[in-house]
Amino acid sequence: MTASPRPRFHYTVHARDGRARTGTLAMARGDIATPAFMPVGTAATVKGMLPEQVRATGADILLGNTYHLMLRPGAERVAALGGLHGFMNWDRPILTDSGGFQVMSLTDLRKLTEEGVTFRSHLDGTKHLLTPERSMEIQRLLGSDIVMAFDECTPFPASHDQARTSMELSMRWAARSRAGFDAGGDHAARAALFGIVQGGVYEDLRARSAEALQAIGFDGYAVGGLAVGEGQDLMFQTLDHTVPHLPDDAPRYLMGVGKPDDIVGAVCRGIDMFDCVLPTRSGRTGQAFTFAGPVTLKNARHRDDPRPLDPRVASPAAAYSRAYLHHLVKAGEMLGAILLTWHNLAFYQTLMAELRQAIADNRLDAYAEAFLAGYRGGDIEPL
Amino acid sequence: MTASPRPRFHYTVHARDGRARTGTLAMARGDIATPAFMPVGTAATVKGMLPEQVRATGADILLGNTYHLMLRPGAERVAALGGLHGFMNWDRPILTDSGGFQVMSLTDLRKLTEEGVTFRSHLDGTKHLLTPERSMEIQRLLGSDIVMAFDECTPFPASHDQARTSMELSMRWAARSRAGFDAGGDHAARAALFGIVQGGVYEDLRARSAEALQAIGFDGYAVGGLAVGEGQDLMFQTLDHTVPHLPDDAPRYLMGVGKPDDIVGAVCRGIDMFDCVLPTRSGRTGQAFTFAGPVTLKNARHRDDPRPLDPRVASPAAAYSRAYLHHLVKAGEMLGAILLTWHNLAFYQTLMAELRQAIADNRLDAYAEAFLAGYRGGDIEPL
Repeated sequence: MTASPRPRFHYTVHARDGRARTGTLAMARGDIATPAFMPVGTAATVKGMLPEQVRATGADILLGNTYHLMLRPGAERVAALGGLHGFMNWDRPILTDSGGFQVMSLTDLRKLTEEGVTFRSHLDGTKHLLTPERSMEIQRLLGSDIVMAFDECTPFPASHDQARTSMELSMRWAARSRAGFDAGGDHAARAALFGIVQGGVYEDLRARSAEALQAIGFDGYAVGGLAVGEGQDLMFQTLDHTVPHLPDDAPRYLMGVGKPDDIVGAVCRGIDMFDCVLPTRSGRTGQAFTFAGPVTLKNARHRDDPRPLDPRVASPAAAYSRAYLHHLVKAGEMLGAILLTWHNLAFYQTLMAELRQAIADNRLDAYAEAFLAGYRGGDIEPL
Repeated sequence: MTASPRPRFHYTVHARDGRARTGTLAMARGDIATPAFMPVGTAATVKGMLPEQVRATGADILLGNTYHLMLRPGAERVAALGGLHGFMNWDRPILTDSGGFQVMSLTDLRKLTEEGVTFRSHLDGTKHLLTPERSMEIQRLLGSDIVMAFDECTPFPASHDQARTSMELSMRWAARSRAGFDAGGDHAARAALFGIVQGGVYEDLRARSAEALQAIGFDGYAVGGLAVGEGQDLMFQTLDHTVPHLPDDAPRYLMGVGKPDDIVGAVCRGIDMFDCVLPTRSGRTGQAFTFAGPVTLKNARHRDDPRPLDPRVASPAAAYSRAYLHHLVKAGEMLGAILLTWHNLAFYQTLMAELRQAIADNRLDAYAEAFLAGYRGGDIEPL
C-alpha cells in the first residue's frame, strides 16, 4: 500500500457559522487550517524568526514578496538555490504576491501601461518591467505554492471612474496572469492561482470584478484594494457587498489585513485567509498584542511589572516579565524584537485557532463580542 | 536517600597535558566543563539569542556586566525581579565582572581615587561612585555565582612604575573586595570570588600580584590587563611567566580573550576560562568563524555558494547556504545576525569541547598545530 499523493489544491469546509467558515485547504506541501493567518516573510525571512519557530506558533503557510525577491537576491538565483522553500528552509506552503502592490507603493518614476509597470528599484535605481507574464514567471522561479494574479491595487480615495478603469485593467491582467501561469508546465500542475477582486468601495464594480474573475476561473479569490486608508467601517461594508459575489467553494483571501479586530470582523464576513506585517513590525518596535489590547513595552509603567504579557498566549516570551521586556526594548536589545515578534505571531495564531473553534462550535458572534469587549476595554494603550 | 547538596565551589582536574588541564568546576547552579568559554550577556541578554539557545550551543556559564546592569535596569531592580537568573531566565551559573574595566573604558569625566571611581553614566550623564564595596554589593544584588574583585585594568602601554602603582591599588582593592564579599551573608555562602592578577607585561609585577592575591585567598584567579592592544606574542609571553605563579588547584580565567587562536594558545599555557564578545559581535556584523578561518559573509563570492558555513559546527545555521546568509547580511535582516551569532557561539563551544578532548587524550600539541594550520591556511578572509 502506498500513500495517496497529496492534492494540488483541495478546499473543504468543515463548519459554517453565518457567513463564516472553517475548513482545510489541502495542498501538495501541507494542509492549511482556515481561517488562516499568513506571517509575512518579505525578503525570504520572517524578520527575526527562524522558520521552525514560525511554524511552532501555528503558521501553516507564509507569504513572500515577489517585488523584494526579484530585486534581491533575484528570482533566477533563488531558483538555482532550491527555490524559495530550499533557500529559506521552509517546506510548507508559501503564497507569493504578484509584486503589483509594492511596485506602485515603493518605487519612484514608475510608469503604468497596458503592458505592465516600468519602475526603478528602490535598492539601486536599476530599471525593471513587471508584467502579468513576468510576475507569473518570477513566482514560478520562486516555487510559490499559491501564486497571485498581477493587478493594480486601486488607490483610496478613487472616483467611480478611476476605480472602474483600474479594475478593468486588473481584469485584463488577470486573464493574462491565468494564461502565463498555465504556461508554467510542471509548476502549474503543482501550484494554485488566485484572482484578486478590485473595484474600490463601489458595490457594482466589486460585483463586476468578482464575476469577471470567475469567468476566467481561479483556485481562490482575494479581495484587494482594502486596508489602504478607507477605515474599518468602509472595509467591512465593502466585504459585506463583495463576499456574496464570490464562489462558496473557494477560499477567500483579504490581502494585507490586519489589526486583530479587523480580522475578527472579516472572519465574521466570510474571509478565510489573511496576511499582515503588523505582528512582526509591531514586535520590532516594542509593541505587543494581548487579548486585553495592545501594550507599548517602552512605557515606564512596565519597569517593575513581574507579569508576563498574556497568560493566554504560549510562546518563549511567556517566560519573561514585562519588566524584562521593557528593559530589552529600552536598551535596544535584539532579543526584545525577537521575543515580541514571537509573542505577536503566537497571539495572531492563537486568535485564529480560537476563531476556528468558535465557528466549529457555532458561537462565533458571542466569541467576537467577548473578544472585542476585552480587546477594547482591557489593559489597552494606544499603539 | 536524599540527593547530596551541590557544592558551593569545587574544582576537579581530570587530566593534564603540559600546562593545560581539563576539569569540572562544580557550583550550586551546575557544573562547568573546563577549559570553558563564557558567552557575554552584557545587558542581561546574550545579544540576539534566547538563553536556552545559548545553552544548546554547550555554554555552561554566562558573563554579565556589572557596569551596564547597575545603570540599566539597576541592581536593586534586578534583585526585586528575581536576580539576574530570574530576570533573564538562565538558571545555570553566571559570572559578573566588577565594573572596573567598563568604568574606565566607557565613561567620561571619571576620577580614580583610593576610594574608587567616580564617573558619569554613558547613558544619561548621571554621576555614580563605584568602589570595591559597592561592586560587591551590586554583584550580590544581581545574584552572581562568580563574583570578580574590583580592580583597575592597567592600560597598555604602561611604564613599569605606572603598572606597579596600578597593580598595588588593585591589590588593596582586592582585599577590600574580599571583605565586602564575605560580609554578604547568604550570598557569600553560595557564590565564589575570583581575584585578578595585574602588573602589565612585567614578570616581577605579575609574580608579586599573584602572591598578593593568594595571601588574601580567592576561589579562582583571573589574569587581567591583557587583550588591550599588546598583541598575541606579548600576551602569550605574559601568560608564560604569570601562570606558574598561580595555584594549581584553582581555576584560571583569562579575561576578555579572545580570537580562536588566542584561546588555543592560552589553553596550552594553562588557562581554564575565557570570555569574549567576539563571537556575538562578529555575528552581528556578518562575520562567521569556521575551522578554515573567519568568513566575511557580505563578500559577493558567497552570493551563489550552496555550501553551509562549516560541516564541523552544529547549529541551526547549518541548514542554510552561504548564499542565503550572504543575502540576509546584504539585506540587513535580523535573521542574519541571529544565525551568525548562533553559529559563532557553537563554533567557540565546539572548539572548547575539542580542546578538552585533546587534553584528555594527551594530544593537545598536535591538536593545536592542526587547528592553527587549518585556521590560518584555509578558506580565510581578513576579518
